[in-house]
Amino acid sequence: MDMNVQEKKAGFFQRLKDFPSKLKDVVTKRVKNVLMFGKDDPRRIIHSMKVGVALTLVSLLYYVRPLYLSFGVSGMWAILTVVVVSEFTVGGTLSKGLNRGFATLTAGALGVGAVHLARFFGHQGEPIILGILVFSLGAAATFSRFFPKIKQRYDYGALIFVLTFSMVAISGYRTDEILVMAYQRLSTILIGGTVCILVSIFVCPVWAGEDLHKMVANNINKLANSLEGFEGEYFPLPEKISNETNSCVREYKSILTSKGIEDTLANLARWEPGHGRFRLRHPWKKYLKIAGLVRQCAFHFEILNGYVLSNYKAPEEFQNKIQEPIATMSREAGEALKAIAKSIKTMSKDTARVNAHIDNSKTAVGNLRIALKSSYPETDKDLLEIIPGVTMASILIEVVNCVEKISEAVEELSGLAHFKETLDPKILSAEIGQHQLLHRGTVKPVLDGDNGEEDTDSSPHVLINVHDEQPPATTGKNSLGVEKNIV
Amino acid sequence: MDMNVQEKKAGFFQRLKDFPSKLKDVVTKRVKNVLMFGKDDPRRIIHSMKVGVALTLVSLLYYVRPLYLSFGVSGMWAILTVVVVSEFTVGGTLSKGLNRGFATLTAGALGVGAVHLARFFGHQGEPIILGILVFSLGAAATFSRFFPKIKQRYDYGALIFVLTFSMVAISGYRTDEILVMAYQRLSTILIGGTVCILVSIFVCPVWAGEDLHKMVANNINKLANSLEGFEGEYFPLPEKISNETNSCVREYKSILTSKGIEDTLANLARWEPGHGRFRLRHPWKKYLKIAGLVRQCAFHFEILNGYVLSNYKAPEEFQNKIQEPIATMSREAGEALKAIAKSIKTMSKDTARVNAHIDNSKTAVGNLRIALKSSYPETDKDLLEIIPGVTMASILIEVVNCVEKISEAVEELSGLAHFKETLDPKILSAEIGQHQLLHRGTVKPVLDGDNGEEDTDSSPHVLINVHDEQPPATTGKNSLGVEKNIV
Repeated sequence: MDMNVQEKKAGFFQRLKDFPSKLKDVVTKRVKNVLMFGKDDPRRIIHSMKVGVALTLVSLLYYVRPLYLSFGVSGMWAILTVVVVSEFTVGGTLSKGLNRGFATLTAGALGVGAVHLARFFGHQGEPIILGILVFSLGAAATFSRFFPKIKQRYDYGALIFVLTFSMVAISGYRTDEILVMAYQRLSTILIGGTVCILVSIFVCPVWAGEDLHKMVANNINKLANSLEGFEGEYFPLPEKISNETNSCVREYKSILTSKGIEDTLANLARWEPGHGRFRLRHPWKKYLKIAGLVRQCAFHFEILNGYVLSNYKAPEEFQNKIQEPIATMSREAGEALKAIAKSIKTMSKDTARVNAHIDNSKTAVGNLRIALKSSYPETDKDLLEIIPGVTMASILIEVVNCVEKISEAVEELSGLAHFKETLDPKILSAEIGQHQLLHRGTVKPVLDGDNGEEDTDSSPHVLINVHDEQPPATTGKNSLGVEKNIV
Repeated sequence: MDMNVQEKKAGFFQRLKDFPSKLKDVVTKRVKNVLMFGKDDPRRIIHSMKVGVALTLVSLLYYVRPLYLSFGVSGMWAILTVVVVSEFTVGGTLSKGLNRGFATLTAGALGVGAVHLARFFGHQGEPIILGILVFSLGAAATFSRFFPKIKQRYDYGALIFVLTFSMVAISGYRTDEILVMAYQRLSTILIGGTVCILVSIFVCPVWAGEDLHKMVANNINKLANSLEGFEGEYFPLPEKISNETNSCVREYKSILTSKGIEDTLANLARWEPGHGRFRLRHPWKKYLKIAGLVRQCAFHFEILNGYVLSNYKAPEEFQNKIQEPIATMSREAGEALKAIAKSIKTMSKDTARVNAHIDNSKTAVGNLRIALKSSYPETDKDLLEIIPGVTMASILIEVVNCVEKISEAVEELSGLAHFKETLDPKILSAEIGQHQLLHRGTVKPVLDGDNGEEDTDSSPHVLINVHDEQPPATTGKNSLGVEKNIV
């Protein structure tokens, strides 16, 4: 027992000794995490600094004597406004600032009117009239916030309306200097709002519209990566069969539920003035349409993913037959998406390249049909066995259709948003034709540690095996497809 | 010309005459719309009234002389708190109220500390020290709002922290009564917050948790309606072929993008105390899991919908073969979902009924496989023609798998949330067995104006044709399935 107590004591002292170093470890880990988080998107750090700067600027209303003498304690409304209006994006700040400004103005005026009206009813009647007015306007404005259109754009304004009206009307009961008070508050709120908006626009601005623009392009890129990784997942190289799936095939996942963020960004983007490549009335709604189509495509991918994950595989012979057209289909559709994403990012039209890739993938759809037809099952048992493969192929064909719809929507956007024309289409399609000839055959992603020779193509991680196993009909159709593109 | 002028004049007077009646029309239309909107969810009107009541209550701080003498103009903080903290749900109000209370307390204390610290540096150094403190704490707290965990639960608290600290620290520079001011503000904020929380909880409360609970059950019901309407869409009765799709088949659409609302509700539900059938630590996270599975199922439906909408139909012979098992599958899976939804709504276990329906739909999956096998294509052209039908059937099988997963997740929930046990399982499964016998054969929804005889079953809009066309193997399997259920 004594030994035990001694051991415990020793253990306690040991822990006491270790405590500082452990604490240091925990703290350094936390600090590292925070720094990593800041590095992830340095705009977050910049935004925090901007809020600090805006706060320091409005605090001058207190520190500088002449300013304090003219505004007095109303300076606190400037501080309050800065804290509440400072949003991450310019659109957010403008939306809140303008809402706050107009709501304060109208509610303030109405409040002063209410106080004057109530005074007609004598000292006894005044609080009753004020109470009725505050109750009814407060309830009505609160109810208006439930209407989707008001909620979307003027929610904050309605809130501030209730706030200001109630405060002016109620505190007007106890002060005679209501107009001075209203003037001081309004002017400090305007000062706070203006400081915020200026800092937001002129110090490293974060534009909601630009974020939406990039997000849509990135989502299309994610889809492209998922499509291009699909073959490697569904037809893995023998040495690679494992339960781990390639992370790039999962990239589409975040698109499934991104609608909320996109809607918010589009809503804020409408408040923003023209900036950089975006004019004042940039067609933000079109981005939502494209994003919807991209999401539709991601839904298809979610279902496809189920087939990739299922342990059930179609018979090898059938797999071999459909592998080549499926590989071409997903690769070409993926490249079309990459071209579309690049076209959005650079805001330049690239219709020829996109259409060429889409045509190639459609040709591959034709080849897939031929391959499916040629894999006519010999027994009724075989029919059941190929059903999952057939379903997978069928959904992938739908994905190609989705890609075409996305390209049409982006074409529409490129017209409305004045995308600039780029390369001479003739040179381009000749280039793609060559590219296509290089690509004919089976393309498999090279794995780490795989000793396959790297090709000299622009995409460094692709290994091309040109083999003769493919049915002659398929190859014929394929080159036909390419010729069609050059025209 | 003269005639023209006269005509114009007459037209103008006419319009002037019509104006009041037109205005009346517009106004009545608007008022009707608003009333309709309120009727849609009367809780909106009640909430607006509640905000009005809370505002009237805190305005007593101004109207009642003794209260005004003790709190002075700080009463406006109570008004501000009521307006800002009043959220639609109890969880929202509690989350904002508690965040505001704690943030004001800590930031107020730190602010008073900062003012005392700054006074050591003399009148020249005071604003500099205060400025540095406000800048750094403001920036740090703003940065903390980017962390997902803080954003989710303490975003408002961090905002109020910056607000209070800045206001106390900056205005402390100009007043010597800082402690009195801090006390008055804190107490009025506590009064405002308490009034809000009490009104929110005790006057017709809207619980976020209950909303989430109902929403999940309703979404499952929507899926069930879509499933049950599927057969009628895909195999329309000859006299019904039209491009209009039944609205109930589209019900699943809203589920595709409901993640945001569900997450918000679950987040708010965690702030709520135990109420009614929900204990304090109700497993809200499990609802999100179920909602995720329901959404997965809706994704499948979105793809199925593409097949319903496509004009391409499989050959009639093939359609006839797969119609019966597909009808049973979708109907039984739909009934399983309805039973699950009811079990959630009533918070009572109904495992036997759910499992019986799932087993029935699985038996139908088996029959579908047999039907597919028996529709072994005679030529390779036929194979291509049945592909869309095969894909559709294949996705529908996945839907049945989804339904099973949903039922498992709800089973888990029912254990954690202490759902009550209901009927004696034996009686129930006998009842379902009988029900199943009645249902054997093809079930088609009865159309308005259709003179088919109505059955005496519980669902009044279903017409049952027991016919002999089905392959004997199918019928055998089907009754086998039923027997399995009775055991």
